[in-house]
Amino acid sequence: MLAARILAAAREAFATTGYAGTTMRAIARAADVDPALVYHYFGSKEALLDAATDPPQRWLDGVAATWATPVDRLGEALIRLMLGAWADDEIGPVLRAILQTAAHETTTREKLRRVVEGSLLGVSQLGTDDADRLRRSGLISSQLMGLAMVRYVWRIEPVASMTDDALVAAVAPTLQRYIEHDLG
Amino acid sequence: MLAARILAAAREAFATTGYAGTTMRAIARAADVDPALVYHYFGSKEALLDAATDPPQRWLDGVAATWATPVDRLGEALIRLMLGAWADDEIGPVLRAILQTAAHETTTREKLRRVVEGSLLGVSQLGTDDADRLRRSGLISSQLMGLAMVRYVWRIEPVASMTDDALVAAVAPTLQRYIEHDLG
Repeated sequence: MLAARILAAAREAFATTGYAGTTMRAIARAADVDPALVYHYFGSKEALLDAATDPPQRWLDGVAATWATPVDRLGEALIRLMLGAWADDEIGPVLRAILQTAAHETTTREKLRRVVEGSLLGVSQLGTDDADRLRRSGLISSQLMGLAMVRYVWRIEPVASMTDDALVAAVAPTLQRYIEHDLG
Repeated sequence: MLAARILAAAREAFATTGYAGTTMRAIARAADVDPALVYHYFGSKEALLDAATDPPQRWLDGVAATWATPVDRLGEALIRLMLGAWADDEIGPVLRAILQTAAHETTTREKLRRVVEGSLLGVSQLGTDDADRLRRSGLISSQLMGLAMVRYVWRIEPVASMTDDALVAAVAPTLQRYIEHDLG
């Protein structure tokens, strides 16, 4: 699949050199196709970024399934969901491309907001009202995305090399507290 | 001070458009100086990035002072230190420039590692041995930097607009747990 090959090359390039530092020509070269073909499939660099950072349906389904977890085990389920997604050959590169371009690209930042909202905010189990639910979701996101940045993007040790189980033991109680405890 | 004006313009430009997306010419224009002067002061774009992301001594001193806090109030002290630093006219733009370029620039990522180590790892109060201390420091960093990304870089609501006191109440216990509790 040529389009899939171009998308994979685009994710890698955007994640490594950023949106502004990436040219359509470099993506074409990495995908081993003619630049005209990249334009033919995706129209523009902006449209290619948009396509390259679209969350796979399988990830959205996994997120929805996670919310069926009983609330007292939701903290662990969320951290395991995050670790599994980053280890996934299809989903991991999309998440990486999103986090690595969201700092500078408004369109990716909007997508990150939607991913956060779609992953966390539709959670009727959380909190006492909408404002409380949103606050809890934001705090969960701050821990999960901070962990993703340290572990996968910035690769700061020892967090980059800790086992999944060690991270779950350390971080699940944080998430559980944001889910159901009094936050002052 | 011309050099200070160039540095401020460089931080803003790197944070907004990334390192690859920023030219020395654009920085010169933002600082309202001749591009030759930017080269005269800083030599190269890489050297300018390096200077623009150097942590101010006042910040390093503040970090050192925070570690004198009794261990049972260290969680709150650390989150207040982070919130104060981002609100500071001098320190905030440096932290922003570091976090917004570390995803793509190896030199900034190394600096981020050193800042994390310098801010957190020299903490003889934490943990039972070096490995345990490093693990606790990494987890503290993951929460503090995730919060900084969500609140200041990606500006995702409601975390972006929560009061300092509400964030301290919500996040200090997380840090306190990473500082002194059993992490499994």
